[in-house]
Amino acid sequence: MSAAIILHEYAASGNCWKIRATAALAGVAIERREYDIVRGETRTPEFLATVNANGRIPVLQVGDRFLPESNAACVYLGEGTDLIPHDNFDRADMLRWMFWEQYNHEPNVATLRFWTGWIGLDSLTPVQAGQVDAKRAAGDAALALMDEHLARHDWFVGDSVTLADIALYPYTAKAGEGGFELARYPAVRAWLARVEGVAGFVPFA
Amino acid sequence: MSAAIILHEYAASGNCWKIRATAALAGVAIERREYDIVRGETRTPEFLATVNANGRIPVLQVGDRFLPESNAACVYLGEGTDLIPHDNFDRADMLRWMFWEQYNHEPNVATLRFWTGWIGLDSLTPVQAGQVDAKRAAGDAALALMDEHLARHDWFVGDSVTLADIALYPYTAKAGEGGFELARYPAVRAWLARVEGVAGFVPFA
Repeated sequence: MSAAIILHEYAASGNCWKIRATAALAGVAIERREYDIVRGETRTPEFLATVNANGRIPVLQVGDRFLPESNAACVYLGEGTDLIPHDNFDRADMLRWMFWEQYNHEPNVATLRFWTGWIGLDSLTPVQAGQVDAKRAAGDAALALMDEHLARHDWFVGDSVTLADIALYPYTAKAGEGGFELARYPAVRAWLARVEGVAGFVPFA
Repeated sequence: MSAAIILHEYAASGNCWKIRATAALAGVAIERREYDIVRGETRTPEFLATVNANGRIPVLQVGDRFLPESNAACVYLGEGTDLIPHDNFDRADMLRWMFWEQYNHEPNVATLRFWTGWIGLDSLTPVQAGQVDAKRAAGDAALALMDEHLARHDWFVGDSVTLADIALYPYTAKAGEGGFELARYPAVRAWLARVEGVAGFVPFA
């Protein structure tokens, strides 16, 4: 990895934290470039043309190539480290939790945090407002599934921290900001502390 | 891969097709076990306890281990084949499209197909009905983003078919069943034909 690596990000985004945390644990130096997503800085014609046609951060730039999608960027940075299991099934199982995070967890737990803390629940569109209850139920179901798994395992895959834990950490840690009650999920809380105790852990402020 | 491999599936699901297609292209024999998702066969206590606590198919069973999430199963089966690029960045870029598929494409394009063909647009809950327009707009945005990429590239990553193409094929091919007009996306249509021309391609009936 000799090319300069630049993280195009919005620091308060948990998806962006995942990449900073992975880079730190993997010992990869990255530059950071901040965008204000609320002011639309990732929807400008220049951003869409050069960084990400999907208009979203994070994007990891490696030389002149651009890699959107937080979990894909984590895999790129984590390749060759113990953050990715060496066993084929375990590696796929790590990806399983990362895909699950983006499908079942982030659209519920992270979206309610954003709607609550950035937009305001009183300012949602009618379509958004109509989804709040469903997203709260789906978010609680995701946290309950994590709790069940973590009651029997210290880490999501194998015997040490992997990218699956990194991917699931930030929005779980901040779930309270979206109105979720982490007190209901004791195994999740113990796991959050376990992740925070990993040598080289980067706090998600 | 000496352990028996069983695909727990619902054959009409595009997510399940991805795994069958990958297994065929990778030359891996799999057994198939069918569940009727409409009748709740993936929400039984037995299924939740043994196959997938998340109550969803597909799940790939390898010996006594269970791997949910279609795209993770494809990575497991495709490991070591040309369906996964050898270059680190290209491999991460393949995962980028697969994560994008599950976040931006499937919840819109596949969900509208399911709501239209399985539930019926007249039978949706009010919360679902309130999301139809937003999902149609987001699905069209996803198809437009694919079209823009495919106007300049034959495949999503590199110079040949990868798991990114496999992941994006089924719900794109059936987008019309959800009311999307593929005629608006000529580069997508050319790419669908290109995927169907891959030696060993398994039709999605």
